[in-house]
Amino acid sequence: MSNKLKLGIPKGSLQDATIALFEHAGWRIYASGRSYFPTIDDAEIECMLVRAQEMARYVEHGALDAGLTGNDWVLENQSDVERITSLTYSKQSRTRVKWVLAVPEDSPFEKPEDLAGKTIATELVEFTKRYFAAKNIPVKVEFSWGATEVKPPTLADAIVEVTETGSSLRANRLRIIETLMESETQFIANKAAWADPWKRSKIETLSMMLNGAMDAQIQVGLMLNVRKADLDKVIGVLPALNSPTISHLQDPDWVALNTILDNSLVRDVIPKLKAAGGAGIVEYPLSKVVL
Amino acid sequence: MSNKLKLGIPKGSLQDATIALFEHAGWRIYASGRSYFPTIDDAEIECMLVRAQEMARYVEHGALDAGLTGNDWVLENQSDVERITSLTYSKQSRTRVKWVLAVPEDSPFEKPEDLAGKTIATELVEFTKRYFAAKNIPVKVEFSWGATEVKPPTLADAIVEVTETGSSLRANRLRIIETLMESETQFIANKAAWADPWKRSKIETLSMMLNGAMDAQIQVGLMLNVRKADLDKVIGVLPALNSPTISHLQDPDWVALNTILDNSLVRDVIPKLKAAGGAGIVEYPLSKVVL
Amino acid sequence: MSNKLKLGIPKGSLQDATIALFEHAGWRIYASGRSYFPTIDDAEIECMLVRAQEMARYVEHGALDAGLTGNDWVLENQSDVERITSLTYSKQSRTRVKWVLAVPEDSPFEKPEDLAGKTIATELVEFTKRYFAAKNIPVKVEFSWGATEVKPPTLADAIVEVTETGSSLRANRLRIIETLMESETQFIANKAAWADPWKRSKIETLSMMLNGAMDAQIQVGLMLNVRKADLDKVIGVLPALNSPTISHLQDPDWVALNTILDNSLVRDVIPKLKAAGGAGIVEYPLSKVVL
Amino acid sequence: MSNKLKLGIPKGSLQDATIALFEHAGWRIYASGRSYFPTIDDAEIECMLVRAQEMARYVEHGALDAGLTGNDWVLENQSDVERITSLTYSKQSRTRVKWVLAVPEDSPFEKPEDLAGKTIATELVEFTKRYFAAKNIPVKVEFSWGATEVKPPTLADAIVEVTETGSSLRANRLRIIETLMESETQFIANKAAWADPWKRSKIETLSMMLNGAMDAQIQVGLMLNVRKADLDKVIGVLPALNSPTISHLQDPDWVALNTILDNSLVRDVIPKLKAAGGAGIVEYPLSKVVL
Amino acid sequence: MSNKLKLGIPKGSLQDATIALFEHAGWRIYASGRSYFPTIDDAEIECMLVRAQEMARYVEHGALDAGLTGNDWVLENQSDVERITSLTYSKQSRTRVKWVLAVPEDSPFEKPEDLAGKTIATELVEFTKRYFAAKNIPVKVEFSWGATEVKPPTLADAIVEVTETGSSLRANRLRIIETLMESETQFIANKAAWADPWKRSKIETLSMMLNGAMDAQIQVGLMLNVRKADLDKVIGVLPALNSPTISHLQDPDWVALNTILDNSLVRDVIPKLKAAGGAGIVEYPLSKVVL
Amino acid sequence: MSNKLKLGIPKGSLQDATIALFEHAGWRIYASGRSYFPTIDDAEIECMLVRAQEMARYVEHGALDAGLTGNDWVLENQSDVERITSLTYSKQSRTRVKWVLAVPEDSPFEKPEDLAGKTIATELVEFTKRYFAAKNIPVKVEFSWGATEVKPPTLADAIVEVTETGSSLRANRLRIIETLMESETQFIANKAAWADPWKRSKIETLSMMLNGAMDAQIQVGLMLNVRKADLDKVIGVLPALNSPTISHLQDPDWVALNTILDNSLVRDVIPKLKAAGGAGIVEYPLSKVVL
Repeated sequence: MSNKLKLGIPKGSLQDATIALFEHAGWRIYASGRSYFPTIDDAEIECMLVRAQEMARYVEHGALDAGLTGNDWVLENQSDVERITSLTYSKQSRTRVKWVLAVPEDSPFEKPEDLAGKTIATELVEFTKRYFAAKNIPVKVEFSWGATEVKPPTLADAIVEVTETGSSLRANRLRIIETLMESETQFIANKAAWADPWKRSKIETLSMMLNGAMDAQIQVGLMLNVRKADLDKVIGVLPALNSPTISHLQDPDWVALNTILDNSLVRDVIPKLKAAGGAGIVEYPLSKVVL
Repeated sequence: MSNKLKLGIPKGSLQDATIALFEHAGWRIYASGRSYFPTIDDAEIECMLVRAQEMARYVEHGALDAGLTGNDWVLENQSDVERITSLTYSKQSRTRVKWVLAVPEDSPFEKPEDLAGKTIATELVEFTKRYFAAKNIPVKVEFSWGATEVKPPTLADAIVEVTETGSSLRANRLRIIETLMESETQFIANKAAWADPWKRSKIETLSMMLNGAMDAQIQVGLMLNVRKADLDKVIGVLPALNSPTISHLQDPDWVALNTILDNSLVRDVIPKLKAAGGAGIVEYPLSKVVL
Repeated sequence: MSNKLKLGIPKGSLQDATIALFEHAGWRIYASGRSYFPTIDDAEIECMLVRAQEMARYVEHGALDAGLTGNDWVLENQSDVERITSLTYSKQSRTRVKWVLAVPEDSPFEKPEDLAGKTIATELVEFTKRYFAAKNIPVKVEFSWGATEVKPPTLADAIVEVTETGSSLRANRLRIIETLMESETQFIANKAAWADPWKRSKIETLSMMLNGAMDAQIQVGLMLNVRKADLDKVIGVLPALNSPTISHLQDPDWVALNTILDNSLVRDVIPKLKAAGGAGIVEYPLSKVVL
Repeated sequence: MSNKLKLGIPKGSLQDATIALFEHAGWRIYASGRSYFPTIDDAEIECMLVRAQEMARYVEHGALDAGLTGNDWVLENQSDVERITSLTYSKQSRTRVKWVLAVPEDSPFEKPEDLAGKTIATELVEFTKRYFAAKNIPVKVEFSWGATEVKPPTLADAIVEVTETGSSLRANRLRIIETLMESETQFIANKAAWADPWKRSKIETLSMMLNGAMDAQIQVGLMLNVRKADLDKVIGVLPALNSPTISHLQDPDWVALNTILDNSLVRDVIPKLKAAGGAGIVEYPLSKVVL
Repeated sequence: MSNKLKLGIPKGSLQDATIALFEHAGWRIYASGRSYFPTIDDAEIECMLVRAQEMARYVEHGALDAGLTGNDWVLENQSDVERITSLTYSKQSRTRVKWVLAVPEDSPFEKPEDLAGKTIATELVEFTKRYFAAKNIPVKVEFSWGATEVKPPTLADAIVEVTETGSSLRANRLRIIETLMESETQFIANKAAWADPWKRSKIETLSMMLNGAMDAQIQVGLMLNVRKADLDKVIGVLPALNSPTISHLQDPDWVALNTILDNSLVRDVIPKLKAAGGAGIVEYPLSKVVL
Repeated sequence: MSNKLKLGIPKGSLQDATIALFEHAGWRIYASGRSYFPTIDDAEIECMLVRAQEMARYVEHGALDAGLTGNDWVLENQSDVERITSLTYSKQSRTRVKWVLAVPEDSPFEKPEDLAGKTIATELVEFTKRYFAAKNIPVKVEFSWGATEVKPPTLADAIVEVTETGSSLRANRLRIIETLMESETQFIANKAAWADPWKRSKIETLSMMLNGAMDAQIQVGLMLNVRKADLDKVIGVLPALNSPTISHLQDPDWVALNTILDNSLVRDVIPKLKAAGGAGIVEYPLSKVVL
């Protein structure tokens, strides 16, 4: 089974976003509704849909050569795997998720120590136990099968739960008293696979193209023409990070600028470019950026 | 909080069927998409949506007075609760579900003993461990977060999984080698609640009406007229269980029969009734049956 | 155009419930998605879909002979029409709706008088103006095109809005300080149509059957057998309103009872009937009840 | 394969209605989206989904013992099959469908003879050819793969097409000039299967129960109490067809009537019953009627 | 509350298109299904969903600093607001909508004057009254709650109604006899906000970027290579409006052209460019165009 | 009717893909759900939706000037039409479909000759008859109205059926024993229309733009900067087919490359470009490519 990379795709909330990212990166994954073995248009890769919670376990044991999962579940399972790159694409935004300790709004609990002797419900049982053990706070940690945030105060005293914006916690009248961990998606590999040259090269190509596609989603291309006299002023408006490509035009008084820019800056930069003398400003979408 | 029954409704696959059964029984439960505290049109009851997996745990501890869950999860949690009645209404049919030990079709495993030293994936970890321990078969039991049936042979050697018809197992090319347990929905109560006369009476009323509604779904009413001369022949065709109500008619040669019958028998019984001299045979639907 | 009744069906939130009620009553109305002139399987009736807000206006002027609309809109338009019957079937429940005066939770307003000089947003402009004028409270009443409950405090000081349970008002942090009117669906008729014998008879038939169908939705049939010795005890358990039909059985020691009962009473009555000696208790659904 | 009836269920527009009718009749057919071999809860029957157009062909050849299809396709295929019963349940109504000859509204064609030498598009090619041949009118009949009613005048001169209400024809500005055939669903059997005693008995049971379920859908039960003095008047109001069951009540001045009635008559009969002295009039739904 | 712009987003048919336009322009608006206060990823802006009909009223009074609404509703309310720019993006197309006076196809009305003494139904009551008053034609104008186009002739003699293509009017057999107004979306501002330098600058930035995004939706980028000898011929084929950017290539006989073009012209221009000697013609999409 | 091209759009499985391709090519087709005459934003074209099976028949007869259909149906109808271009856009992929002869997996049939005397079901009756006649194999070919792949072995011995990946055949346990034809979408024209200069020019423009849009869907643009010293190495990495456009930059040591590339090659080429010294590599999407 040399020259075949066994790749785990996270089943569930990240699945569609992951498949979309691979498509942008250049690999088409076909996941029919029922099968857990999606096909991929690359004869060197074999895909399997695996729950994010179990991914690190199976990558560690070598049932998979590589996979995508959250850092939270790598830590929960204490898996010994190679971390290739972080990929910050979550369902709704690009922010990282947080695992927090939350208690009822009107409870007296203010800090982790206040929960000594209490019951904590969470999906992240092992991580939570280690966290409280490290602080020498005795608590009872119960596995929660879901809907964790509705449990306090009836079914638990506090919870350790994942959140992006905190809105679901607020809606359930819970108050965050501590952030235990921040987490984002990781591209991880089995240690033996990483030591194999062919597999490592394949994993690195995937990593480069996934990052190239991800970067292109938050950047845009910008072209404009500038009178040579205004060139410094216009360049001064651009973020310092990437210098633009400047090319001659038939009209010797003008040059053309072509640059890439973070999508979030465009609404501020374009008005300044125009004020500085930029003309014919055109923004165009990108598919990949590999600088 | 006397005169208030805290009732757990199973969240998830049984939720809609449970709410429908309560409606047939005479209680309307309004579950808005987001809230875990559905309202009910009975001031003496407070509802909470709880996962079937956790129901027995919370009924045992008294956070809930009573609830509905599968017998499988009562056993998994080894909860010390009062079993009031079985309610055989599952999503698709009225058959019980089974938890089975399944292995890949083409594997050499033929009986539980063959799995000594192997890895078994299941949602029912504690029950499975006890099962194999009782047989003195050493196995590694891993918790499965879902999609258990696709794990063999790549991610596990065998699984313990729930099934109604076995079709999902067959579709994943698995072979059943043992049935570990049959399970059906249980109406369970907290032991202290059961000892409280008001709560016990309320629970018994619920039990009577839920059973009455459930029975009505599998039975129908049948009315027909019979010449007195044919009465014995007609009665002979009816199942022996319930004797029909026979009433006089204005026409002294005839009587009217009114009876209830299992829905599944109707297609066989009506042709026989007609052959035996039944006339004006009318089947009508029932809403509750309390014999 | 004699012997043809022009009937207005309320377009919008009541439409499906109205058409369903007519079907239960014995008239099938076919409303294709686009047409405002649904067909009906009664050659003596012509239907038109009309907004509840405008129904009374067109019934008053005679463009329609009869129609269904809320009492609120009859009052808003001060229409001079004949009220035939109330029909309490709303989308969600059978309770009446209320039009209330609501203000921001944290505002100082406590009673209508506190709103002197303020702006009130409502869909029911004329009724609201008359209400405040009658109390000699000067206010500015603005027509609201919708989403009235989000307007205070930014876009209005208070609102007059319809509500069933108050939950939408609470969700928008509004406080009710006065109920201005309760409203339910009315079957109304044009005064000239009501004076025409053929039209009046047709309207009365509709009214009888609509009420018969509506009553059947909140009532059920109950049959049981009783030993003659227990008859008084069993009858004592039944609500006094409707005496049951009691018939002889072939077995001279027993009688059969057949009665109708409010759906909401069944869960209390059946356990009592059984305790009093009722046997073979069967509840069955009804399609129409005309006592 | 004795004691096994091979039954064809029509795939397509009639499929859901057919399965619903079988459920009412007492047989549950489970058709999963993809399989053409639905399961049925009767070990003596094997189902197969077959296009209505091909059903008669396969019943004739014995690949199926019995099946449901339209009379139109029996005639198109000139199949030599046994017709057991007509079953008038179509998707929208209970009226029969018609196959008509239709031409553009503004064309000069007035009768079949006017189409001599013209092109006619239809799905019913053989029947149409025979129809025109019998009249000695030479026409070109082309098979239409669908959307037949949009073909005139661009792609055909006339069409032979199925219609229930004619509304699709009118919408396409076509005019009917002749009705070639009326058609309704037929329960048909293979001639050899009909000669086999066991199969014939099975087919007859199906026929009795399908008809019993179908009749129940257009009939209702009616119960009322009548003072003996009013009995003749009340009976005079009922349709003559079925005499009611009259039973004694405990109160010797009254009798109870129980009868069945066409659903479409109820809205006229109930007001008359009440006027004639009927009391406690209750309509209830039926599931099967076998008189 | 300085440095905070209160911005009204039109609720309803324009809402999704408006939010999409803002996203193209560089602002992400998150409108959850229930809230009327969508969040926006710009700390300097506060959004509120407001009906287009009420927008101008609230911008005029200063409850909002700026907002988007149709010119029709600015006129209906006779609101004294600053008009910043027109934004021709409607749901279906980029054409303006028209408010027209329409009458039944077979009515005798031919011009506004013919409606003297008649009843006109419309949502635009005040505008319509002023229109007829200006012409000294006495009419009765009634507010229509919706479905205006089905009212003539039963419920009104004529209507004033909005239309894009006239197809809904034709479907209701109405005939347009006059166009009263053309309307398109306006970006409007409160007069005091417009006088505030910070708010004005913010509004102007929004206006520039909204227009830049809107223009990019109807334009494309075009790149091609041209032999210097063919340059004039190729340039002659391009629309005169925007001169292309011409740049040198390594091959001294060729130049590269880069230009933008209206999307609707591409299908005519590309064949001509190729015929004139253009090579390697590539069209690419644009995200913003600020010339 | 000169200067008007009558164009057939395939109704059914290809319809949406065809309309999307025309939109990419520069023509917007509006197909409302019911009408078979979609509008198009080109006054010189008239569209009609026609079944792919019938398209060639109507193009041949001149009812349509041009149309899109599969090569399979051109052959089935043996239509004498002009084939303008192939357009390989099918619903799921760009591969061609195949018509294959398939038999039950466990049948003894191995080659076409083995089917002598057997029954073959297919939608492609005439083509199949000619195929077997040419081989002198006597078979019975029956028209299949659909669901052809479930017919063997009960209803037919073998089938001739269309397939892309063979998965539906495998799912029905069928085995392919011969490929009779490969087919892809054809843009075809009536011979007289092709001889008319105006129509021919219009058809050629459509063909150029449809191909330009289709090519753009499988290609991308790639821009990068290269040190002059690395230029040969970088160019060596690019596929030989299209030479890149190379332009001077202000920095005399660097040049800019702009090229187009098959989408499927990008994931291999970008890593090599970077390794060869490419910098600032940017991939951007294309809308049309006309080389």
